[in-house]
Amino acid sequence: MKKRCAPLVLLLLLVADLCAQQSNQSAGLMIRHRLMPVPMSLRFQPGRLAINSSFSVAVTGHSDARLQSGIERAIKRLESRTGLALTNTVKSGQQGAVLVIKCERAGQAIPTVSEDESYTLEVMATQAQLIAPTVVGALRGLETFIQLLDGDRAGYFIPVAQIQDKPRFPWRGLLIDVCRHWEPIEVIKRNLDGMAMLKLNVLHLHLTDDQGFRIESRKYPRLHQQGSDGHYYTQEEIREIIAYAKERGIRVIPEFDIPGHTTSWLVGHPELASAPGPYQIERKYGVFDSALDPTREETYKLLDKFLGEMAALFPDAYLHIGGDEVTGKHWRLNPQIQAFMQQKGLKDKHALQAYFNQRISQLLQKHGKKMVGWDEILHPDLPNNIVVQSWRGQKSLAEGAKKGYTGILSSGYYLDHMRTAAYHYAVDPIRADSDLTEQEAARILGGEACMWGEYVGPENIDSRIWPRMAAIAERFWSPRTVTDVEDMYRRLEAVSVQLEDLGLMHQTYLGKMLRRMVGGEGVEQLKTLIDVVEPLKGLGRAEVIPITQMTPLTRIVDVAGADSRPAREFALMVEGLLNDSPRFHVYRDGVQRLLEEWRQVHPAIYTLADKSPIIREAETLARDLSELSRAGLEALGYLSEGVAPPEEWRNEKLAIIEKVAKTKSEVEFPILPTVRLLIVAAGEMPQLKTMTPGNWKAHITALANPKK
Amino acid sequence: MKKRCAPLVLLLLLVADLCAQQSNQSAGLMIRHRLMPVPMSLRFQPGRLAINSSFSVAVTGHSDARLQSGIERAIKRLESRTGLALTNTVKSGQQGAVLVIKCERAGQAIPTVSEDESYTLEVMATQAQLIAPTVVGALRGLETFIQLLDGDRAGYFIPVAQIQDKPRFPWRGLLIDVCRHWEPIEVIKRNLDGMAMLKLNVLHLHLTDDQGFRIESRKYPRLHQQGSDGHYYTQEEIREIIAYAKERGIRVIPEFDIPGHTTSWLVGHPELASAPGPYQIERKYGVFDSALDPTREETYKLLDKFLGEMAALFPDAYLHIGGDEVTGKHWRLNPQIQAFMQQKGLKDKHALQAYFNQRISQLLQKHGKKMVGWDEILHPDLPNNIVVQSWRGQKSLAEGAKKGYTGILSSGYYLDHMRTAAYHYAVDPIRADSDLTEQEAARILGGEACMWGEYVGPENIDSRIWPRMAAIAERFWSPRTVTDVEDMYRRLEAVSVQLEDLGLMHQTYLGKMLRRMVGGEGVEQLKTLIDVVEPLKGLGRAEVIPITQMTPLTRIVDVAGADSRPAREFALMVEGLLNDSPRFHVYRDGVQRLLEEWRQVHPAIYTLADKSPIIREAETLARDLSELSRAGLEALGYLSEGVAPPEEWRNEKLAIIEKVAKTKSEVEFPILPTVRLLIVAAGEMPQLKTMTPGNWKAHITALANPKK
Repeated sequence: MKKRCAPLVLLLLLVADLCAQQSNQSAGLMIRHRLMPVPMSLRFQPGRLAINSSFSVAVTGHSDARLQSGIERAIKRLESRTGLALTNTVKSGQQGAVLVIKCERAGQAIPTVSEDESYTLEVMATQAQLIAPTVVGALRGLETFIQLLDGDRAGYFIPVAQIQDKPRFPWRGLLIDVCRHWEPIEVIKRNLDGMAMLKLNVLHLHLTDDQGFRIESRKYPRLHQQGSDGHYYTQEEIREIIAYAKERGIRVIPEFDIPGHTTSWLVGHPELASAPGPYQIERKYGVFDSALDPTREETYKLLDKFLGEMAALFPDAYLHIGGDEVTGKHWRLNPQIQAFMQQKGLKDKHALQAYFNQRISQLLQKHGKKMVGWDEILHPDLPNNIVVQSWRGQKSLAEGAKKGYTGILSSGYYLDHMRTAAYHYAVDPIRADSDLTEQEAARILGGEACMWGEYVGPENIDSRIWPRMAAIAERFWSPRTVTDVEDMYRRLEAVSVQLEDLGLMHQTYLGKMLRRMVGGEGVEQLKTLIDVVEPLKGLGRAEVIPITQMTPLTRIVDVAGADSRPAREFALMVEGLLNDSPRFHVYRDGVQRLLEEWRQVHPAIYTLADKSPIIREAETLARDLSELSRAGLEALGYLSEGVAPPEEWRNEKLAIIEKVAKTKSEVEFPILPTVRLLIVAAGEMPQLKTMTPGNWKAHITALANPKK
Repeated sequence: MKKRCAPLVLLLLLVADLCAQQSNQSAGLMIRHRLMPVPMSLRFQPGRLAINSSFSVAVTGHSDARLQSGIERAIKRLESRTGLALTNTVKSGQQGAVLVIKCERAGQAIPTVSEDESYTLEVMATQAQLIAPTVVGALRGLETFIQLLDGDRAGYFIPVAQIQDKPRFPWRGLLIDVCRHWEPIEVIKRNLDGMAMLKLNVLHLHLTDDQGFRIESRKYPRLHQQGSDGHYYTQEEIREIIAYAKERGIRVIPEFDIPGHTTSWLVGHPELASAPGPYQIERKYGVFDSALDPTREETYKLLDKFLGEMAALFPDAYLHIGGDEVTGKHWRLNPQIQAFMQQKGLKDKHALQAYFNQRISQLLQKHGKKMVGWDEILHPDLPNNIVVQSWRGQKSLAEGAKKGYTGILSSGYYLDHMRTAAYHYAVDPIRADSDLTEQEAARILGGEACMWGEYVGPENIDSRIWPRMAAIAERFWSPRTVTDVEDMYRRLEAVSVQLEDLGLMHQTYLGKMLRRMVGGEGVEQLKTLIDVVEPLKGLGRAEVIPITQMTPLTRIVDVAGADSRPAREFALMVEGLLNDSPRFHVYRDGVQRLLEEWRQVHPAIYTLADKSPIIREAETLARDLSELSRAGLEALGYLSEGVAPPEEWRNEKLAIIEKVAKTKSEVEFPILPTVRLLIVAAGEMPQLKTMTPGNWKAHITALANPKK
């Protein structure tokens, strides 16, 4: 790593400088801040508020336990980062306090979608004033205050600034699926800490699915006893999670996915099934046929009591009933259900599910809850206070909005699909070309990222959520005009470090998992390889190696991240290099160094695999990486020397690229398109030297991506 | 790091080869195993038991829930390391099972010091048999089985072996002080996991002290409510800890330190004090004057009820009453206490404390507990079923044993003194020159390492306990003849990685804390510096910078480890180099590379400190390291070229060494003696070339350490 630090730092500075203007559009002073999400309005001015051991806080307006603990947590974080003992922190009056917090009221007793989360933060050279209508707003402002912390030779400080801030969307969530794999309460807590830092406000717990029933039901204990392998939240723990979330201004919405995705329910209650039992907890992944029988009153009797129990446990106004992916097969095969449908005039599975949803809607109404469900629940018979969570996309969501339904977007925010932060960042809950009226657009409440649990356990889940989730959080909070990708990545680096302060392990998991793989020595070479591969995007992984709930999550694909930083930096450097026509000198050393480093991984991995069978699968990867790197180095040579390669060279090298691209593997090389670009560019020498950047880009890109 | 991997691997192999014989004294086959603690008897033979996806376990003798969960945990760890889904693991009969466990009985319902922890493990090419009289013995054997896991091109396997094992000492403990800093229950749990892996069997919780009262008392709730800042274990949590420990064959012994070290008690109960209140939780560290009033019946009344409550909560036969460091000042100043002493004929504070202890002893007897206390409690009036925990040393312990008292050693095992693993490893509870009879020696039950809490919080405590604790665990378990330091370090590396599998964070904390210091970029250079400094040994730190309970533990000294690996490797390489007379060629490149790397740290740290005031204190260190390295490089030059340095050179360089040695800092350079050795050796050129290793060693060492 060390070897390439210097050019990368240069590169980052360059990129950062380019971005400075954009990240700070309304600024009176250009400051490369590290705020995430970017506030609605932000203006820096010359000057600084010193943060030293005499730091103090005064609360002049409303005060309560929630605000006080928020302040205590903020002080602890300032202490950790500065190393200063801030023991003199509580001031009774405004005078002399370094930070004055003035809050009008507590905010809602139970947080809702209409909570006022706005705040203003005015940092002056002698004092900062944080003003908010509610405690939740003050908590949001405190996060901004902490993120502003900076340092130089004169010590720590907060730059003088005026900030007015409020969220663009009122529903900014994260779904965590604890069914496919169990996540103990400490995982939830540390993720709530991360959410609070990024000003997210909804934790959606996906609590039941085919592979697990993860909550204690006192009314129907066979549900969790037989459906969970002993891994479920007790009601006490749920209360603890809810309280922990509320302390941070976060709502908790439970999801009980019905009538499909219910195998785990049927282990203890086969009498509710649409096909004869017995049932076992599902270990495989996918969409299964088992479903509750929507034609039997026993089903509604159990659901009435169970949902009543849950409605009392979860204070949020909403309750999620899932409702997705019912295959209908077991309904089709059950004569009794068929007869019922005929009798009621329900023409297909959709009609039957609509009937079911309407019954559930009545139950929820009775228990004082509004319904949330996936796209499939949308049906004219349902009241329009429901919220549709769209896994289908903005179009589906916008259609709902036009019909009067409120909704949130999840399509485009599936964290388990292992796409880059840039990918998610580009998805807006409301498309730029949307034809929604203002009133219709207001029905789009926001979005939720989804951390589906097939491939994550306590050890690597943080690395699948963070830091990418922070980019999504910014999408939900900041003005839609905040879209600069490189600046987002720059700020993400800083945020990522601060997230670990809160206990998240998205960076530390890596060293730990790699050390386990090799038993200690040799981690550096393996890390170089892992850093430059990414798990297949989307649902590809499952097609390469079948995996079940029982498969350990400790292999290469479970360690590799979604957003390779070396690959991103490599791409930026190659672009800089090609822009430097006709010399092709800028970043050449950096590009070469990276390629050399990658090329050398192969023999090291081979030696490691001698003793660690678990990394034998890395040998092919290392060989491929070596080939890619060699091809890239050769291309670099032609570019540097300004000479044309032999006729056959280009095709040979492109064939290698295609071979690597087609290798069946759970991971892929995000550097591949960049290496292809290098090869194609080298193949165009020496005429490339005569082109302007504008020209070569179109030319080379067309050649490098022939299909487009 | 990468740059020096190759020579270090060579070096480690060399050292390892030298040690192979010693670590495997009774072996039929030479295998460099990674077992820790080394079993009593161990014999490898050719052959291997394959570990693949058809791995299975059969329990043929006694079985119970504790054994079953031990097996489940073991399987999970095998799965993580191998990446294999071991789903077919439970066999009802011995036939076809890969691992057969035959256990005679459950073992004690409440673990005691006389629990039988022995086991035999016979690994054959088709099956392994683990035989143990108790479940605890089987759990110990399972740890050995997992540690034997190895891999090569043919897959994972356990080498064919016969092992007979039992502990040398029955009391093998770790004290964790949760008073000076609070450690939440998850910290305790992951440390219990680590203890179980190293076959430790006593967790000693230091629950009350001047700086905190860390346990819920329902009888006297003011104790924890006013004495803990809200950080204490509920009784529910204590039960959870005890159950968690018992599952792993570990006893839990609570300590309530009385009559001194009791400031936190007096916040809620000033009426028990020997001097007038009010009292506040003590924030400073050290020995304080506050003490319970041993002359008042109210004191005994409260202690009777409180100790009764605790005796019911903690099932262990022993209860620790501390009893250390009573200054006696408040007793001396209190006329009522003085009158009482005169009346009872108690001539000094020791006599008064003995009176107090005797009263407490009666209370404990009433509540069915035996007493443990620090050296100071030893007094002829106490029954001899007490256990004395010695912070004074082996001599004090042996004297007790001669008088008929059982005892355990803690002197030499203070983890907070930040000494090396080698240091602790050399301390034996019974000195080699001991004159104890066999019967007397048997009264020395073992030892406890002490993790005093002044300088540790949840973030860095693991790194202060592990991996050094593993070396102490070996001292407590393995035959006293197992003393090879380099082989211990080799095995410690492997064990350290496996400890992290269990959730311990002694390696990952480092990256996290360094990233926080610099905000992300530039961690590598800071790590190079941190890796080569160690906190001052013993109690030195407190004299450099005053620190209280409120000081953040996030500075250089809180991150630096106790046992610098680069420094150890540097020393080994320099010794190899000097042994290679007259060429001085072996390891020269390695030594030079390390010195060059260290020399280059200075400018990098200077740049980092521009933005991170918290690492400004590292600038002096980096400068000193640079000077040391330059001196070392010059010495290396003279050695390589075989020429004598100018006359003044040696004195000049030694002056630099002395200057660095005298720099007031919380950390020190463990490479300093090795650099001094290099300088002195270079100063003896060219005559050094004519000396044999035996000769030069005595000569140079005398010159390098003039005081000896």
